[in-house]
Amino acid sequence: MKVGIDFGGMSVKYGVVDEENQIIARYTLETDIKASPTDFVEAIAKGVDSLLAQAQIPLERIDNMGVGCPGIIDRQSGKVVYSNNIDWHDVDMGRQLEAYFRRDVAMANDADTAGLGEVLAGAGKGKQSAVLLTLGTGVGSSVIMEKKIWTGPLMGGCELGHMTIHGNGEFCTCGKQGCLEAYASASALMKLGETLVADKADCALAKACQGNKVTAKMIFDCNDAGDQDCQELVLKYLHSLALGIGNVVNIFRPELIILGGGVANRKEKLTQQLTPLVDTYVFGRKDSEVPPIVTSVLGNDAGIIGAAHLCKG
Amino acid sequence: MKVGIDFGGMSVKYGVVDEENQIIARYTLETDIKASPTDFVEAIAKGVDSLLAQAQIPLERIDNMGVGCPGIIDRQSGKVVYSNNIDWHDVDMGRQLEAYFRRDVAMANDADTAGLGEVLAGAGKGKQSAVLLTLGTGVGSSVIMEKKIWTGPLMGGCELGHMTIHGNGEFCTCGKQGCLEAYASASALMKLGETLVADKADCALAKACQGNKVTAKMIFDCNDAGDQDCQELVLKYLHSLALGIGNVVNIFRPELIILGGGVANRKEKLTQQLTPLVDTYVFGRKDSEVPPIVTSVLGNDAGIIGAAHLCKG
Repeated sequence: MKVGIDFGGMSVKYGVVDEENQIIARYTLETDIKASPTDFVEAIAKGVDSLLAQAQIPLERIDNMGVGCPGIIDRQSGKVVYSNNIDWHDVDMGRQLEAYFRRDVAMANDADTAGLGEVLAGAGKGKQSAVLLTLGTGVGSSVIMEKKIWTGPLMGGCELGHMTIHGNGEFCTCGKQGCLEAYASASALMKLGETLVADKADCALAKACQGNKVTAKMIFDCNDAGDQDCQELVLKYLHSLALGIGNVVNIFRPELIILGGGVANRKEKLTQQLTPLVDTYVFGRKDSEVPPIVTSVLGNDAGIIGAAHLCKG
Repeated sequence: MKVGIDFGGMSVKYGVVDEENQIIARYTLETDIKASPTDFVEAIAKGVDSLLAQAQIPLERIDNMGVGCPGIIDRQSGKVVYSNNIDWHDVDMGRQLEAYFRRDVAMANDADTAGLGEVLAGAGKGKQSAVLLTLGTGVGSSVIMEKKIWTGPLMGGCELGHMTIHGNGEFCTCGKQGCLEAYASASALMKLGETLVADKADCALAKACQGNKVTAKMIFDCNDAGDQDCQELVLKYLHSLALGIGNVVNIFRPELIILGGGVANRKEKLTQQLTPLVDTYVFGRKDSEVPPIVTSVLGNDAGIIGAAHLCKG
C-alpha cells in the first residue's frame, strides 16, 4: 500500500492507495496558511499518522509515500522552490518529511501528480503517455511519458498554458501576451461572455445571468439551448483550445490528451465538438496518428493517487 | 570507431568517427533519385564498403553504424515511413542494411541526427540536453534529452516549426496557418524583404537586390549598414523567432538552444540581438533559468557524427 498527499490551497487531502489504485482510507487537514512552513510541514506529517491510525494500518505496510504541492518543486532535493498560493520560498519540505518518517518521501507539482494519477488509474489507464490540460481559472498542464512525470531538464518546464498561441494577443495573468491560458481557460471563456453581455444587453446570455457574473456553465447552457450568439462564442473558444491542443500534439505526440477542470465537466459534448477542430491544427496528419481527446474521470482523487506513485528524483 | 551516414537530398555523406568525435575518413555518394528504393539502399550499403576500403579500416573495427534520413522514420523498425524529398513510402531501409552488414544499423530523422551531433561534439558539448532549430527554407527542429534524440511516444512529434504562434496568421507550406516556420524561416525573412522592396522601390534593400531575388544576407547587410527599413524588418523577424524560442523554453526547459541553418551564419550578431527578446517570452523567468542561445558549429558534419552515435529503438 502507498500513501498519497495532495497539498492544495484550501486543504491537505490524504489517501491510502491499494494495489488496484483504490483509495481505501482518507484523511483531510484544513490548510492554515498562518503557520510557519516548518510547523505546517510537521502538521502535514502528523496528518499521515492520523490517516494510518484511523485506518489501523502500520507505517511499515506503506511501501511508497509522495506529496503533490502547488508551485515550482525541485524534485531531486524535494524542495518547494516557490509556491504562489501559500507564499513559500525554498522550503525544504521533502527532507523534513523524510526526517520525520525516516524514509523516502517524493515531491512533485500538484498538477503533475494529478496527471500521473489520471494516466495510472483514470482516463489514461493502460496508456504509457498523455498530456493533461486543466481548463479552470488558468490552464494547468501535466506531461506524462512512460508512466512518469516529464518536466524537462531544467525546472519550470512544461508550462503549456503559457505557450504563446497569438503573438501580441490578449494579455495573460503571467504578464506575457497571447498565452494559451488567456484564450482557453474557463476565465477566458467567461470574459468572452461578459463582452457579449456588455455589447448586446438583450441577448440570451444577458437574460440568463440577470446582471450577475457570467459563468462558463451559463454560456454552455445557452449554447445547448440553440442561442446563436453563444454558439459563435463557444466555437471561437474551442478554436483557441484546439489550436493549443494541436501544438501539444505537434510537439509531444502523446497517446492521449486528457482535459480536466471546470470546462471538462461537459465531457463528450466538449470532446466531440473539439476533436475535428484539433485535427485541422495537427501537422502531417495523413502520415501520423492524432491521439484521442478525453476528459478526466478521477476528479480530486487523481492528485492523491498520482502522489502515492511518485518516485524520487 | 563508428560509421555515420547522412542521407540528404543531393548526396549521401559518410564518415568514420573516432572516439574523440573526429571524422577520420569520408566518402560521398551522389543521390540518384531515379533508382528504386531497394537498389538505392544497396548502393548506400556499398558506399560503406568503399568508405572503409579507402580508409583501410575493416568492418570488424566499427562498433556502431547509423543513418540520418529525411522524413518520418520509425526508429524501432528502421523503416522510412515517408520521405517527401525522395518520395519514399514505407521503405524497409534499416532491415535491408542490417541484412547486408549482418549487424545492427540504427535509423533516425536527419534533423534529429544533426541535433544529436551538435550536442555530443559541437555547440552543446558537455550538455545533456538541447533544442536545435534550423532556420533555412523551413524551420527544422531536434530535441535532445539525456544525450539522446527525443521525439515523443508516437511518430511525427517534435515538429516545432509547425507550432502555431499566430492563430489565423500567415499560411505555411504545410497548409496550416500561423506556424513558426511561416515567421522564422529564412524564407519568411526573405518574404518580408520582398514586400518591403515592392512597397518602397527606392529603399536600400531595393538598391541592393537590383531587381533580383532578395536574400537573407542582403537584408542583414542593409541592417548592419544602418538602414532603418531593414533594421525594423529584422527586429520584426527576430521577435517572431524569439516568441518561438520562448515557447520552446516554456515547454522543454533544455540546457541550451542551438540555432542552425542559413540565418545562424550571423553567429553572435544573431544571438546577442535575439537573447533579450527571448527573455520577454519566457514564463516565470524570475524563478527559473533561461538557457543560453548559441549557433551550431559543426555544419554538415553534425549529421554524420550524430548518425554514428545512434542507438536502435
